[in-house]
Amino acid sequence: MTLPHGAVETPIFMPVGTAATVKAVPQNVLEDVGTQILLGNTYHLYLRPGHERIRRLGGLHQFMSWPHPILTDSGGFQVFSLNHLRKVTEEGVQFRSHIDGSAHFFSPEHSMEVQIALGADIAMVFDECTEYPATRERARESLELTMRWAKRSRDYFVAHAEEVPWFAEFDGQTPSLFGIVQGGMYEDLRRESAERLVELDLPGYAIGGLSVGEPREHTRAVIASTLPLLPADKPRYVMGVGYPDEIVEYAAMGVDMMDCVLPTRAARHGLLFTREGRMNIKNQRYAEDQNPPDPECGCMVCGRYTRAYLRHLAMSQEPLGGALNSIHNLYAYLDTMRLVRDSISLGTLAGLASRVRGRSRVHDVS
Amino acid sequence: MTLPHGAVETPIFMPVGTAATVKAVPQNVLEDVGTQILLGNTYHLYLRPGHERIRRLGGLHQFMSWPHPILTDSGGFQVFSLNHLRKVTEEGVQFRSHIDGSAHFFSPEHSMEVQIALGADIAMVFDECTEYPATRERARESLELTMRWAKRSRDYFVAHAEEVPWFAEFDGQTPSLFGIVQGGMYEDLRRESAERLVELDLPGYAIGGLSVGEPREHTRAVIASTLPLLPADKPRYVMGVGYPDEIVEYAAMGVDMMDCVLPTRAARHGLLFTREGRMNIKNQRYAEDQNPPDPECGCMVCGRYTRAYLRHLAMSQEPLGGALNSIHNLYAYLDTMRLVRDSISLGTLAGLASRVRGRSRVHDVS
Repeated sequence: MTLPHGAVETPIFMPVGTAATVKAVPQNVLEDVGTQILLGNTYHLYLRPGHERIRRLGGLHQFMSWPHPILTDSGGFQVFSLNHLRKVTEEGVQFRSHIDGSAHFFSPEHSMEVQIALGADIAMVFDECTEYPATRERARESLELTMRWAKRSRDYFVAHAEEVPWFAEFDGQTPSLFGIVQGGMYEDLRRESAERLVELDLPGYAIGGLSVGEPREHTRAVIASTLPLLPADKPRYVMGVGYPDEIVEYAAMGVDMMDCVLPTRAARHGLLFTREGRMNIKNQRYAEDQNPPDPECGCMVCGRYTRAYLRHLAMSQEPLGGALNSIHNLYAYLDTMRLVRDSISLGTLAGLASRVRGRSRVHDVS
Repeated sequence: MTLPHGAVETPIFMPVGTAATVKAVPQNVLEDVGTQILLGNTYHLYLRPGHERIRRLGGLHQFMSWPHPILTDSGGFQVFSLNHLRKVTEEGVQFRSHIDGSAHFFSPEHSMEVQIALGADIAMVFDECTEYPATRERARESLELTMRWAKRSRDYFVAHAEEVPWFAEFDGQTPSLFGIVQGGMYEDLRRESAERLVELDLPGYAIGGLSVGEPREHTRAVIASTLPLLPADKPRYVMGVGYPDEIVEYAAMGVDMMDCVLPTRAARHGLLFTREGRMNIKNQRYAEDQNPPDPECGCMVCGRYTRAYLRHLAMSQEPLGGALNSIHNLYAYLDTMRLVRDSISLGTLAGLASRVRGRSRVHDVS
């Protein structure tokens, strides 16, 4: 996948850089662990420091000193998940800032305007993320709204894509807009959503409305039934997943792109993903354990620090603890996806998927 | 100065690694910014993770993966500054943990036992840090106690120094014990303290009881009058200082070693030390400032990030902000001391001192 800010090898996992930073991890370390593309959260950046400010500062790449590809979400998911007082109309969503309670309004057009100001390589249509559980009637209604918003998003985006801050600098290249399939957990609604979305002929498609609390079997079933309906020659992106064995499984099913806050959020709570499973580094059993978190891992954390030291940092709530744990987990995710890509070229992906199965299970329950 | 874990070029500034970590800064970055020797806090490490645990894990160097020199303080300063319920007797100090309120007791012998278990290259005698202000009578009494404790510290240390965790591994080398001059702000008491301490013939001497709230003229006067009383062929260490122009001034007066939490603590509050002065990065004036924090600085932060970005991180309370600010400030301090050493060999130190004068002043008060 070739984007204005560089090529991306798929399948790929995208670390989440919510507020123009992957929490606690410096940009040079993101490069060191093999990050090819970052996800930025439109909702957060719109509220602080503001998309107009970022536009004046040359766009998100320049603002955060990340010269590689960036994808921005539409802001829809955060508007829905972080706001209890939101009000949805045909026009858009009225919501309050989680920072200061101030009133704001997002429409498909406004989400596009913000994403263009940020200057992502890939922007996402403004959708309504259907909650779980949802009745068929509610999922149908939500799907129809998302379709109407997708068309409005596309129309605004096509008319304004050249306004990205880097347009002139990048020889007139423009960002890409991806569509988002909704439809709740209903296979026929998902099918309808996918088919109608593909008619818009967008450069890539995402499956949204997952990781909203549904059991993993539902996630898998929705991906399995929806993926074949999306063009295989365009990137297919599953939003908000997942555990280490999930990302391998979904990649094996044909998913090209995934993102999740899990590796960094879990890290700040002392959870490390290793070849032996999920490890809670605060566990007493690690208090004098001089092994690295994962003895087979090649990351800078496993190369220098012990479980005993990382446990001490976590118990002492030292900021270095969250940072080192995040670096390890990101490396583990990105290294897993490297293995997936290698296995695809070698034709050995099925073997890899069975080897990593269960890696998300808890390692240290005694 | 040659220590078991390596040579140290003096004069030197020591970053403070309170709980076996310089807050938010990974060890490889400490090496990158030119850290030659770290200070560890005995009080904090004794309470968590515990000195016996660190001894079992091979000592502090191995525990925190810092193969270079370490100095530990005696724990005395924290026992006095973090404990309102402490009780001082001839034998030692009874105090409560600031973590869980549990009762503890530190004597000179116990402080030595803890520091030997940690395995510092340089240990400090257990002293009573005289508070400011103190009457002459109180300062005299405190000084006498510190002298008796210094002898007890020395006696225990001499008998047990070979118990450091790395003794066998380092061909039978042992750590060094430094004495601490007290005496409040009274020149004659400082003189008496220094002269009696020098009789103990220790390998290095520190001036303690400064940075306890006294005006800077007092700090300077105590250093100026005490320094000539300490042997110039042994390291002379002023504890707990200071601002960037102070460290140059004191080095010019003949001080070999200094330490201070200021560069890292200020960093976490958004204060950056630059050639233009002290900068509060949260100031609105930096919101769209695309300059690096200090355009003449060679650190990795100034090489990659703008004031606008660092302000955003600080305003958003993002952990990366405190980490990047700390890296810049540490580099600024260590680079200043590199300049001091170069100026000493070139005979141009007076010029440097006058150039950096005022660098601690506030830069951005509009």
